[in-house]
Amino acid sequence: MGIEKKSHHKLIKKLINTQRTEALRGLLKDLDVVEIMNSFLQLKLKYQLDLLEALPKEIASDVLAQLHNYSPVFTEVVEQMNAETLGGLIEEMDGDDAADVVAVLDEEKADEILGSLPLKEREEITNLMKYDSESAGGIMDPDVVAVQKEHTVAKAIQEIRKYTVKEDIEKFYIVYVIDEFQHLIGFVDIHKLLLTEATAFIKDLMDPNVVAVDVEMDQEHVANIVREYDLVVVPVIDKYLKLIGRITIDDVMDVLNEEFYEDLGHIAGTGDEEVLETSVFRTSKDRIPWLILGLVGGFGAALAMESFAVYLEKLPEVMYFIPLIAALGGNIAIQSSSIIVRGLGTGEIQATDLFVRLWKELRVSFLNGPVCAIILFGMVLLLTDNLTMGIVAGCALIAVVVLATVVGSAVPMLLKRVNIDPALATGPFITTANDLLGVIVYLSITLTFTDIPV
Amino acid sequence: MGIEKKSHHKLIKKLINTQRTEALRGLLKDLDVVEIMNSFLQLKLKYQLDLLEALPKEIASDVLAQLHNYSPVFTEVVEQMNAETLGGLIEEMDGDDAADVVAVLDEEKADEILGSLPLKEREEITNLMKYDSESAGGIMDPDVVAVQKEHTVAKAIQEIRKYTVKEDIEKFYIVYVIDEFQHLIGFVDIHKLLLTEATAFIKDLMDPNVVAVDVEMDQEHVANIVREYDLVVVPVIDKYLKLIGRITIDDVMDVLNEEFYEDLGHIAGTGDEEVLETSVFRTSKDRIPWLILGLVGGFGAALAMESFAVYLEKLPEVMYFIPLIAALGGNIAIQSSSIIVRGLGTGEIQATDLFVRLWKELRVSFLNGPVCAIILFGMVLLLTDNLTMGIVAGCALIAVVVLATVVGSAVPMLLKRVNIDPALATGPFITTANDLLGVIVYLSITLTFTDIPV
Repeated sequence: MGIEKKSHHKLIKKLINTQRTEALRGLLKDLDVVEIMNSFLQLKLKYQLDLLEALPKEIASDVLAQLHNYSPVFTEVVEQMNAETLGGLIEEMDGDDAADVVAVLDEEKADEILGSLPLKEREEITNLMKYDSESAGGIMDPDVVAVQKEHTVAKAIQEIRKYTVKEDIEKFYIVYVIDEFQHLIGFVDIHKLLLTEATAFIKDLMDPNVVAVDVEMDQEHVANIVREYDLVVVPVIDKYLKLIGRITIDDVMDVLNEEFYEDLGHIAGTGDEEVLETSVFRTSKDRIPWLILGLVGGFGAALAMESFAVYLEKLPEVMYFIPLIAALGGNIAIQSSSIIVRGLGTGEIQATDLFVRLWKELRVSFLNGPVCAIILFGMVLLLTDNLTMGIVAGCALIAVVVLATVVGSAVPMLLKRVNIDPALATGPFITTANDLLGVIVYLSITLTFTDIPV
Repeated sequence: MGIEKKSHHKLIKKLINTQRTEALRGLLKDLDVVEIMNSFLQLKLKYQLDLLEALPKEIASDVLAQLHNYSPVFTEVVEQMNAETLGGLIEEMDGDDAADVVAVLDEEKADEILGSLPLKEREEITNLMKYDSESAGGIMDPDVVAVQKEHTVAKAIQEIRKYTVKEDIEKFYIVYVIDEFQHLIGFVDIHKLLLTEATAFIKDLMDPNVVAVDVEMDQEHVANIVREYDLVVVPVIDKYLKLIGRITIDDVMDVLNEEFYEDLGHIAGTGDEEVLETSVFRTSKDRIPWLILGLVGGFGAALAMESFAVYLEKLPEVMYFIPLIAALGGNIAIQSSSIIVRGLGTGEIQATDLFVRLWKELRVSFLNGPVCAIILFGMVLLLTDNLTMGIVAGCALIAVVVLATVVGSAVPMLLKRVNIDPALATGPFITTANDLLGVIVYLSITLTFTDIPV
């Protein structure tokens, strides 16, 4: 049943290493694409190329198509493959996958490979490359099964049979209905064709309430539509409402994954870095901006402390709680902002709900702020025996919490309104800003209201 | 085409408010489930119940099934509905959705509703409720189309027609093949049945390499299998390898979403809180443990600073950079840990790869650490004019970075090995630990190696 992953990786590696190509081929024949991918991803580049050579074309092209989700590895492998092998695999691939491969090649190699393809495939690929890679057009498959509304079921089946053989279509679950101008006017679930009389007319079977996406629509928007409507495939139309492709659920899942990890990368300060990134330099480059941001915020805090130096020298205990205040401000802000960024992404929160949301977040802080303040009060008392300072520090903490809530809630919503990715406002940006604000507010309040010994 | 969301929310709200039920029904008739859901989620509980009453049963049951993804709202609505209406909707629902509804009811109401259902539905629901709600059994639909391997296509189609009418199955894309004991032995894509001769045998058409999941498998594991194999539906088998249900891709997407947000909640310190959570108390309860954790870490830092008080009084400038050090330690740790948690979730990283991963993360830190150290050196010089302190602080920072990298990389992998959710180790836990460790390491090194004026 292939449920449990059993790793054939060691054997595969050994067979490649010792160049026992025949034995390798024999082993690979019994594995499925997922098993091969699992091993492939653990190999060094040189061995990855050997493995692709050893695989039958139809499997190798599947592996390459899947590899697109692991972009640093994908780019390396594609760049290193020789043009002839690569051309052979591209010919086997679906149009959308083939276009993804050609897109990462340098111009010269791309031209060489495109030139070697049959005219029809070449046109299909160059046609797809027109679209933004993050739009519906960039992820659609131009091969889509459609029938005329005037046909009977029997005639439609005949047409489908011809078309699927010609275009080598392996899977489809929904048949779209078009008029004589290729306009999309409905759909028929394939099981309906199977279970209905052969003499029935398509136009009587079809559901006219078809949800389609425009070829220029952003892929995240497409994914949300597919998820909301529980679709397994969504048709793509051009500006004349003509059917030009389809996007299947597996590609939609890849998009959702990609968008999710993009958000996570912003929150964690790793940028677009991928788990399988092999280059230490690229990883370092993805991460260092976020660290420098933290350093700049920290320098701000140092400047703030220096400007209060005269008072701090007399009451150094105030400084002991600065890390606590900074951390709390950051934590509060990231709680509010992450919930809001999440809601904006799924559409559960609209950018116009600013005040409703802010009020809800503030009410939460009116509960949590005092709880934290009382705890801090106890800690200050325990450590310094200074009652006034305890009370003042607790009040300062409430101010920090309220401020952090306002910043954490408002900034992502305001960014969304001006069309900047709100996820950028969570993670390092928001924590750094609130570390710094927190330190300034805390020092100002505590040093103003606590009796400083002269 | 229904692409752009046009909001009918205001009108719906007005019609409910003024009790113009007929006009409301007329409007709802023209909307699809997604449009109704969008409005529904913005209504107050009382109006939500009115809206469900106004909807035709088959739409209301769809809305209720979709609502399961918004668990606080779902629970509230289900608890407040009267048993009779709820029973009527449950009868309309698929078995898995119906079981979700019954699961949140108190025992008395559940018994009342189950008692009012036809025997077959009641058995189906109680049967499904046996399974853990986060297992394959908890999300599967027990209605699955299957045919005998000995049948011809014509006979199989006849059987499918009978079964789908009897069980009221609306959609299916794959037909499973079973032997006489109900053992799962293969599958046929439905378009193959459509495009093949009626006299062909199922056993000649079927693909025997069917990927199935065990009824007890964890839902996240199921989702990863569906994603890896690009399936639209996966069959569920019991321990005797008999076919007992199917899980469709829309449910798998819901699972992936749920798991994503669970991880995000751990990283951001919001726990299981949902975007649409309406109760301020529940939100506060979800968030406060993470804040208290931060306070405890901060208190640790305060204790550390107090224990160095004698030195700090003489060299207070050292304190200015404590917020910077704490923030940097936290940021570095969260970068490493988030990448690792991500990889462990998708299976791209195995828990056994500990040293390989740690070494990669360390190499990144050997690049980023010195860059940050040089920046800090400049900042210290600028603010204090103390060359020795600049050098020592820079070195201390490198130590903090290395330590944070080790903790951030190793902890999630070690947790995974002992089967604790590694996502717990990122976010507040890891930042708090590294804030504290960072402060201690920084103070120890700086105060030991800088000349302290006597």
